[in-house]
Amino acid sequence: MKAWEVRRGAGIDSLRRTTRTLPTLGAHDVRIRVHAVSLNARDLNNAASGDGVLVPTSDAAGVVEAIGAGVTQWRVGDRVAPTFYPQWIDGTPTDDKTVGSLGGGADGVLAEAIVAHEDALFAIPEHLDFVEAATLPTAALTAWHAVFETVPLSPGDTVVLLGTGGVSTWALTLAHAAGLRTIVTSSDDAKLDRARTLGADDTINYRTHPDWEREVLRLTGGRGADLVVDVGGEGTLGHSIAAVRAGGTVAMVGGVSGGFGARLEPFALIGGAKRLAGVLVGSRAMAESLVRFVAQRGLRPVIDRVFPFDDAPAAFAHLASGRHFGKVGIAIG
Amino acid sequence: MKAWEVRRGAGIDSLRRTTRTLPTLGAHDVRIRVHAVSLNARDLNNAASGDGVLVPTSDAAGVVEAIGAGVTQWRVGDRVAPTFYPQWIDGTPTDDKTVGSLGGGADGVLAEAIVAHEDALFAIPEHLDFVEAATLPTAALTAWHAVFETVPLSPGDTVVLLGTGGVSTWALTLAHAAGLRTIVTSSDDAKLDRARTLGADDTINYRTHPDWEREVLRLTGGRGADLVVDVGGEGTLGHSIAAVRAGGTVAMVGGVSGGFGARLEPFALIGGAKRLAGVLVGSRAMAESLVRFVAQRGLRPVIDRVFPFDDAPAAFAHLASGRHFGKVGIAIG
Amino acid sequence: MKAWEVRRGAGIDSLRRTTRTLPTLGAHDVRIRVHAVSLNARDLNNAASGDGVLVPTSDAAGVVEAIGAGVTQWRVGDRVAPTFYPQWIDGTPTDDKTVGSLGGGADGVLAEAIVAHEDALFAIPEHLDFVEAATLPTAALTAWHAVFETVPLSPGDTVVLLGTGGVSTWALTLAHAAGLRTIVTSSDDAKLDRARTLGADDTINYRTHPDWEREVLRLTGGRGADLVVDVGGEGTLGHSIAAVRAGGTVAMVGGVSGGFGARLEPFALIGGAKRLAGVLVGSRAMAESLVRFVAQRGLRPVIDRVFPFDDAPAAFAHLASGRHFGKVGIAIG
Amino acid sequence: MKAWEVRRGAGIDSLRRTTRTLPTLGAHDVRIRVHAVSLNARDLNNAASGDGVLVPTSDAAGVVEAIGAGVTQWRVGDRVAPTFYPQWIDGTPTDDKTVGSLGGGADGVLAEAIVAHEDALFAIPEHLDFVEAATLPTAALTAWHAVFETVPLSPGDTVVLLGTGGVSTWALTLAHAAGLRTIVTSSDDAKLDRARTLGADDTINYRTHPDWEREVLRLTGGRGADLVVDVGGEGTLGHSIAAVRAGGTVAMVGGVSGGFGARLEPFALIGGAKRLAGVLVGSRAMAESLVRFVAQRGLRPVIDRVFPFDDAPAAFAHLASGRHFGKVGIAIG
Repeated sequence: MKAWEVRRGAGIDSLRRTTRTLPTLGAHDVRIRVHAVSLNARDLNNAASGDGVLVPTSDAAGVVEAIGAGVTQWRVGDRVAPTFYPQWIDGTPTDDKTVGSLGGGADGVLAEAIVAHEDALFAIPEHLDFVEAATLPTAALTAWHAVFETVPLSPGDTVVLLGTGGVSTWALTLAHAAGLRTIVTSSDDAKLDRARTLGADDTINYRTHPDWEREVLRLTGGRGADLVVDVGGEGTLGHSIAAVRAGGTVAMVGGVSGGFGARLEPFALIGGAKRLAGVLVGSRAMAESLVRFVAQRGLRPVIDRVFPFDDAPAAFAHLASGRHFGKVGIAIG
Repeated sequence: MKAWEVRRGAGIDSLRRTTRTLPTLGAHDVRIRVHAVSLNARDLNNAASGDGVLVPTSDAAGVVEAIGAGVTQWRVGDRVAPTFYPQWIDGTPTDDKTVGSLGGGADGVLAEAIVAHEDALFAIPEHLDFVEAATLPTAALTAWHAVFETVPLSPGDTVVLLGTGGVSTWALTLAHAAGLRTIVTSSDDAKLDRARTLGADDTINYRTHPDWEREVLRLTGGRGADLVVDVGGEGTLGHSIAAVRAGGTVAMVGGVSGGFGARLEPFALIGGAKRLAGVLVGSRAMAESLVRFVAQRGLRPVIDRVFPFDDAPAAFAHLASGRHFGKVGIAIG
Repeated sequence: MKAWEVRRGAGIDSLRRTTRTLPTLGAHDVRIRVHAVSLNARDLNNAASGDGVLVPTSDAAGVVEAIGAGVTQWRVGDRVAPTFYPQWIDGTPTDDKTVGSLGGGADGVLAEAIVAHEDALFAIPEHLDFVEAATLPTAALTAWHAVFETVPLSPGDTVVLLGTGGVSTWALTLAHAAGLRTIVTSSDDAKLDRARTLGADDTINYRTHPDWEREVLRLTGGRGADLVVDVGGEGTLGHSIAAVRAGGTVAMVGGVSGGFGARLEPFALIGGAKRLAGVLVGSRAMAESLVRFVAQRGLRPVIDRVFPFDDAPAAFAHLASGRHFGKVGIAIG
Repeated sequence: MKAWEVRRGAGIDSLRRTTRTLPTLGAHDVRIRVHAVSLNARDLNNAASGDGVLVPTSDAAGVVEAIGAGVTQWRVGDRVAPTFYPQWIDGTPTDDKTVGSLGGGADGVLAEAIVAHEDALFAIPEHLDFVEAATLPTAALTAWHAVFETVPLSPGDTVVLLGTGGVSTWALTLAHAAGLRTIVTSSDDAKLDRARTLGADDTINYRTHPDWEREVLRLTGGRGADLVVDVGGEGTLGHSIAAVRAGGTVAMVGGVSGGFGARLEPFALIGGAKRLAGVLVGSRAMAESLVRFVAQRGLRPVIDRVFPFDDAPAAFAHLASGRHFGKVGIAIG
């Protein structure tokens, strides 16, 4: 079957077509016909670092087309998506559960078909098309994990979302639907206007308000936010910590920007009993919770633009430009 | 000032007008001009049992009209409501914190004015009128506590609400706004139709489905609900336990119906690692969380009917009839 | 290989020798040479009810003697015990995870050898012999689950343990080692004296104190216990609920006595915001936590008496007599 | 009454005797005769920074000698200690609750007598003398908060404690008594030997093992610690983060050393979904939990040396030398 691959360390420009033979199905394996893939900034980072040849991307959706003899969870025709960490089924993360991530520790999903263990899949909601559903395994699940499984929140609590990329717009959609108050930051007023249509209660342009934590404090009556989802960027961390209330949490999501880079001043955390939490994508159990909510409320991702499989390089170039709002997708077949 | 009082043990028919003199304000006391009171089934129960003379009701809203010399939290003119348990400020309940409940352990709020310690008040949201805000201290806070502070839920989880009384309709409004899936039961299809307009995702008529837990299981793909808020009634408890999933919880709220009355079969809980949780109204800290959410989303109670102060007996008669949907209120002044 | 089996419904007296052929090992299966089995009251209940023929008991320990081609977690010679629920690896229980319990939903472990999926085993601590380790899968894990995974406790909190059977003595040993204050009840002063040697801080003879909750209240300065582990018995539940503090929890463990049987008065729970939690045995992840603690502190079960494999009927008779303190074991080979 | 005071910004050498007049007791105030004070590194930091004149220290114990007219919680003769944050009674911290800390935001306790609101005291355990009890409000409560109220731990989990100062030795004593596995670091083998007598399961000399996280990984079978309590020091933070398991937490306690100072590499947290939590001293409710545990197990602090009130400067000089193991105290009267 056809796929795309990159030479790690050579960057996304090394993307080239290839043909791969899928492995024979083991007893508990499932073969999925991939109908859409969705891109994440992490895909660019993984192409720019490391060694060897890799099929990139981790976000996909498709249909089961063959199952191993021992498979009990799936039937041919089921609409599914692969889990980012094939071994992380349930419970808390461990080093063992978080090896072999798609498009990073192992080959990814930018291919016409993939093979996965039956435990490493989840069903996708009926109301989403494949391009929409392809945003679930990485972007939406990271957003779910950051907002709902990092720290207990109550309805009406305030969440600050940095920027309008794929994780942040999913986080906005999910948080708004869950009764949380949302504040979105961006350097682009047009993007902030769009964020309001997705449910942002307040917005802050961090170009006009470089010390944007002051706006957060003002908007919360001096109290601060309960949670900031920080997707990185030069110097965001200090502002994020300053923007949370005493006892509040900053969820740090990696791989979206070029890094965090700020020197952390520990007393910034101690003085207010604040917390900093690293967030990995999530387990299959979390993905199932995400899907239940997305299906129940009919939630949808923001799709910026969809490219055909043959134009994968153009899709990545669009992602790298930073001009998108929401997700960049690739439709296959 | 004018008030109404009952002879405990003699029932609500003993309600009669009285005139009381308010105590001199202590250093930390606040006098509130009461503008509205809201009724709860508990008020009928308290009139029907116990000894002595009592000013009934616990749900009120009004305006601060005088403050003691040491008061720091309030100013004259603030719109406030009293807390159900004057001593339960924060943290988990204790016997000490839960004595002296309004209209039960101590005189209540069916009066032109009341005096309360400054710690025993909370601010009411601007978008609610006094009759609406008067439903917050007992009915709404009980609903908040049952749904959000009994067991951790995730958005998309399923909550079953029994009936369409004051606690259940507030619970429906709150749960829906927080991204929970809601199932409402009633014996009256018209009330179920109204519940749908408040956001009920599914409804069950327990007259046509006496074993209504089967409908809950069917609607949840055999899994069961994550939480049932059981406000009592003959024999509801066994159905509620059967309706929750393995590891799920039944929140038992007292004082709304004539009791629970069912014999509990312990294995019904053990077999599925299920839980039964008694729910008291709540602390001031919980009330502040409730208000933040109600204000942020502009939520409103369902007001069935409002009576003038002089018609308090008619208001209680209407409540006792069971024909209401939502709250019965009394406007004062 | 040799085993014992019962006719379900005919009671433990139907126990008879049998010879069974073990299934061929699947790719992920492990064959364990069983060196010891430990008995639970549940084994008597399961013999007395249901249909069909069953190898009884769920508590065993032994050594891996063969592994399937795909097994990665175990090697021949490893000292292991099987998990009570073969499908409950991690996370919260579901109906699917809790089918097929050993010696109940599926054949048990009173046999010279058993076959289990590699996910359905856990390593046993080095300091325990096989008879001691055989108490871990059911009795110790139930105790662990009831005390440490039902409700968050703080060191110094008070736990009441009913009686001195296998679950209660393990719970006493575990709770004491974890800095909890323990109160043990029994009708036998000699057993209470032994409980003190295991770390019981206080003891109550419920024959001389039928309303033993009053003693619990007295011993806790009127506050009540934080947790009661109730293993059943006629009428214990009401006393247990009365013995816990406002906001406290009664963990109900099934299958040890003849049942609970009491009519539950719901207001007993509501009045103090108390909770009743059904407790199932536990997951493999919980078993691994248990083993880590047991190993780290060198904890040991109380072994009442050990019978040879050929005397299994005598072992069950001893268990049924109720004269034991701690666990009744069977040594094999 | 006599007291000691410092000029903030001038350092501890500015310590000088003074005489102060205590304020008249308000209705809810209590006057305490101070019998012992205990020192913390924070006292040196507070003397070295800020402005104005301050009575230093926050850790004291004494006896109630007079009460205001409205006091209900205390009687003359009660043995008590003041809470570090007079306004933080219960619940999570807020900016309002954490102002006015003793010996920092407000005058401290190095005086013959102090006045406190009745809510800002807690009873001390009978088995402790005043010098021992004087370590509770700051050092022991910080240790309690860091170990038991930062993140849920299970018995048998591994806690790493940095150094052998007052917070770390209390944390060691508390953690050991609660069934946690403890690993202590120091640059001094003699101190590590003493830590073993207090219950340290393992010790690491960070001078001979500068990358001491490798030893933690080795001692935990490659898994890492569940919690590290980091009291600061140049460059400790990176090692602490590397020493915790995936999903584990580093509790950062301030004010003990000269600061943390390390540049935080965010990916060190993200890669393993690790957490960094700032820890403030604690609430009165936490202090009451601490005392219950300390009393129940008869725990005691390590007292390094006790100085008379008149030798306060020598006591601080001893603290500043860093030669102590455990707490430095001052006995009064």
